[in-house]
Formats: sequence, structure tokens, C-alpha cells
Amino acid sequence: MKRVLFAAAATIFWTCSAIAADDASQWRKVDPQNLVLIETQYGTTAVELAPSFAPKHVERLKALVRAHFYDGLSFYRVIEGFVAQGGAGEDTASTAAKPKDAAKTAQWPALRREFEHPFSKGFTPLGSPDLFARQTGHVDGFPVGRDTKSRTEWMIHCPGTFAFARDDAPDTATTEFYIVIGEAPRRLDRNLTAFGRVIADPAKQDKILSMRLASDIPEAQRPSYEVMRTDTKAFARWKAMKKNPAPGFYFRQPPPILDICLAPVPSPKIAAAP
Amino acid sequence: MKRVLFAAAATIFWTCSAIAADDASQWRKVDPQNLVLIETQYGTTAVELAPSFAPKHVERLKALVRAHFYDGLSFYRVIEGFVAQGGAGEDTASTAAKPKDAAKTAQWPALRREFEHPFSKGFTPLGSPDLFARQTGHVDGFPVGRDTKSRTEWMIHCPGTFAFARDDAPDTATTEFYIVIGEAPRRLDRNLTAFGRVIADPAKQDKILSMRLASDIPEAQRPSYEVMRTDTKAFARWKAMKKNPAPGFYFRQPPPILDICLAPVPSPKIAAAP
Repeated sequence: MKRVLFAAAATIFWTCSAIAADDASQWRKVDPQNLVLIETQYGTTAVELAPSFAPKHVERLKALVRAHFYDGLSFYRVIEGFVAQGGAGEDTASTAAKPKDAAKTAQWPALRREFEHPFSKGFTPLGSPDLFARQTGHVDGFPVGRDTKSRTEWMIHCPGTFAFARDDAPDTATTEFYIVIGEAPRRLDRNLTAFGRVIADPAKQDKILSMRLASDIPEAQRPSYEVMRTDTKAFARWKAMKKNPAPGFYFRQPPPILDICLAPVPSPKIAAAP
Repeated sequence: MKRVLFAAAATIFWTCSAIAADDASQWRKVDPQNLVLIETQYGTTAVELAPSFAPKHVERLKALVRAHFYDGLSFYRVIEGFVAQGGAGEDTASTAAKPKDAAKTAQWPALRREFEHPFSKGFTPLGSPDLFARQTGHVDGFPVGRDTKSRTEWMIHCPGTFAFARDDAPDTATTEFYIVIGEAPRRLDRNLTAFGRVIADPAKQDKILSMRLASDIPEAQRPSYEVMRTDTKAFARWKAMKKNPAPGFYFRQPPPILDICLAPVPSPKIAAAP
């Protein structure tokens, strides 16, 4: 077998067998109150929000979603290898020719930054060096960096990180959001308010048909997701496997380094509630 | 302006103005002998090969291309965030059910590994720490790692890196190739023979309509590309900009770290030869 892809394949197989084993204790069901479903022509992008990281931004996003603010808008700025930005196309460099829809956005005043927050409980260190943070690891499945001096924590800009855009001044986020795609732009860490991550994605971004909070969908139709608990032996094994997914394959043992962004916590879709 | 995207925008603008300034000395035209054009329904993916890194693999790829080996085959294994693998679907885990087309692949015997090579001339250090290599930088626009003890060099697995797949044994590459997509899988460095990089990509992979060497296309129809020379002040300025693309935007100065994979050397398409 040509095994260059063994690494990813092993992840998938392992995840599936873990699900098959049905060891409920290693999974946390995603709270539908924190689950945003973005519909595009390609399917559903599911984003889990982290209200404890950035309560005001989560509150704003939920309000925008419930006001159907995003429905029919677009991912108007998709830059391969960087981010897909969506919303009203509010006064950005790429849409400067388009007059700002003041009526649409004026009712959403600028938010105060929530770039970082105090240490969360339930932090699982990644156990790997990092060039951008003193410590990295996971909280509730979210990739976080930590400054052990200031005891602050923040969501890391990995592929799939969901955050609000802003103007040059720090307290200027209103309605525009972006999803990181491609290589992790770690320089943005603690420079923007990141408060969610994509847990399922059809991988192509386009017009936003709708954006809903899962808890607003009748339970029978609502999709459900689980996230692997990071305080389990199962997750420790999964990380060890990610660090060296195919011991038989490697000609040269890679350094024992696992990039935080190469350890996206498994988040399978589960059957709808009966 | 919502500036989260300023970083990428600045890159694009800067590159364009650099082209407009027409400072020929900072650009190197890609040799059509080393330019592979992969046609899919989405457009042309242009790959520059590095024959000095892996001469036997480059020779093999050119022979395969000229034999029309890949035409009509597929990117049969695309794993979001990892790699897109193309070729005959030769006996991989994902195609185990499909019998190996022995007649198609038998005439291409396994290649000896070319995972690394002696130091190249014209190396430009990135000037940023790295967790996987003692030193990183660019050679002819290719991202490379270097071991200053063994004085060996290798192409780094960044998004866009082009390499040959292999079996568990190191000297088993034959015809199957992959292109890195998503977050850089650095653990593969020096574990596979990487010998090219994508310099232009329509970003979606599918059926391979054709795969040609640019030098085999009549000059009038042949697309041309330039690569920014990395031994120039222009490139040094470009890297400084990538390290902090928007000084006015950053609330918190990021660490002075530039990931090698976030510094893909500008490689614009230029007008066809008159």
C-alpha cells in the first residue's frame, strides 16, 4: 500500500472504531444552544461556540442568527490558505465600492474585545512545544494557548477557528465573522476575538442560505454532534497516534512535536435524538 | 475597514505593485522544462519541479507526464486539511477493492529515496525559529529545512508541496503523487521525496484531464510564471511584511516568528512570450 495517507486514514478509522466501541464517557454531546449551523449550497457547516471564552461575542452572534441577519448574505471574501469571511460585506477593503448598508448594521454597536480570558477549568496540555504560546492544549475541545504569567487563555487560530473581524481599533467588532482556512495564522492569536470552531464542514464556502442555532430547530430535525473529551485516556492515545500515526511507515522518526492545529478534537455527528 | 484580511490583501497588493514596478532583477522566470501543468475541470494547477533536489524523481515524473500516464486519472484520495493524492489509485488503502492495474504500473520500477540532498547554493535563511529543523529558508523559492550537522537539506511539507507517495519501505515510490493541502504535515519531512511546489492553483482537485510539461507546449500557448528571487532586498521586505502585515492593526505585537509555510514565495503568472 502507498501509505502517505495512512496518517489521516488511521485517524478516521480510529475515530470510527472509538465510536463503534460506544465508550460514552469519552464523548461530550454538543449543547444545541452553542451549535450554529451555516447552510450553503454545499451542505451544513457546524460551528460550536465557546460562551465562556467570549460571552458578549457569543451573545451577539446568537442575536444576529436569530434575527436572520446572515441569511442570504455571503462569504464575500474567501482567501485561499487564510480565511473565509462572511456577513454583510461591511465596509471592507474588498467591498469598498459597495456602500455600507448602514440600516442593516447600525443596530449592532461595536463590541468590546474579548481576545483572552482567565484560565478555564478542564485544561488538557498538549505536551508539545509551541512558538507562539507558553503552553497550548485543549479546553472542551477548543485549541487554546495560555500565558502562565498573566494566567490568561485564548482560542488559537487553527484551521476551523471562528472569530469576529474588526477594524484597526481593538473594540470594533460588530457583525462580520471569519473562519480560518488553510495554514494557521497564529499571529492573529489574542488580536481578534475567537470564540468557536468548525466541527463539521462541507469544505466549500459560498452564499449563506441560512444560519441557525441548533436549539431553535425542532429536536427531531436537529443534527447532533459529540466532541471527544480531552481529559480521557482515549484522547491521550489519539494524540500519541497523531504524533506518529504510522510507526511502520516513518523512515526517520519525526521530532516528538504535535502542532496544536494538527490535533483537531474528533467531533462526530451522531444520530438525531429518537 | 474590517481588516482581518489586511494581511493577505497587503500581500497581494504588494506583489502586484512589485510586478508593476517591473524590477526584473527580483524575479526568476520558471524554466518550462521544470513546469508541470495539471488540468482539471477547475483550471490549471502549475507545479514547479526542483530537479537538483531529487533528480530521479523529477526524471520519473517527466517520463510519466510525457507518456500521458496521468491523463484521465484522478485525485482519487483527497483528505481535507492533509493531502490530495493522484495517479493510478495504485493499491492504496482507499482503493483496496480495486485491482491494481499491473500493466499500467509495472513498467515504472520503484525509485530509490531522495528524501534529502546536500546543501544547495543560494540558500536564504528565513530568520525564524522552527521546531522541526535546525534551519529553514528558501532555495529557488522552495521552502527547505537544513541540518547544519549533516549538511543535508530537504523540501519542507508546506501546503502546495508536491511529492511522491510510497509504501512502508523507503525505496518504493513509483507513480503516485500527492499535493499537500491544509495545515503543513511537517512530520513527513525527510520521510518522503518532495520535489516540487504548486505555484498556481485553482484550489479544487478532481479528475486529471491532462498533465503536461510546459516545455512540450508550443511557446505561443505556453503559460509563463516568475518566482521572486529570495536573495533580494525585495524578498527580505516581503518577509518582514508577512511577519507583521499590518502594524496598525495588531493590538498585541505577535512574536517575531514567521512560519516557513506562511511564506510561500510570490510566483505570478506573466504574459505569454510574444
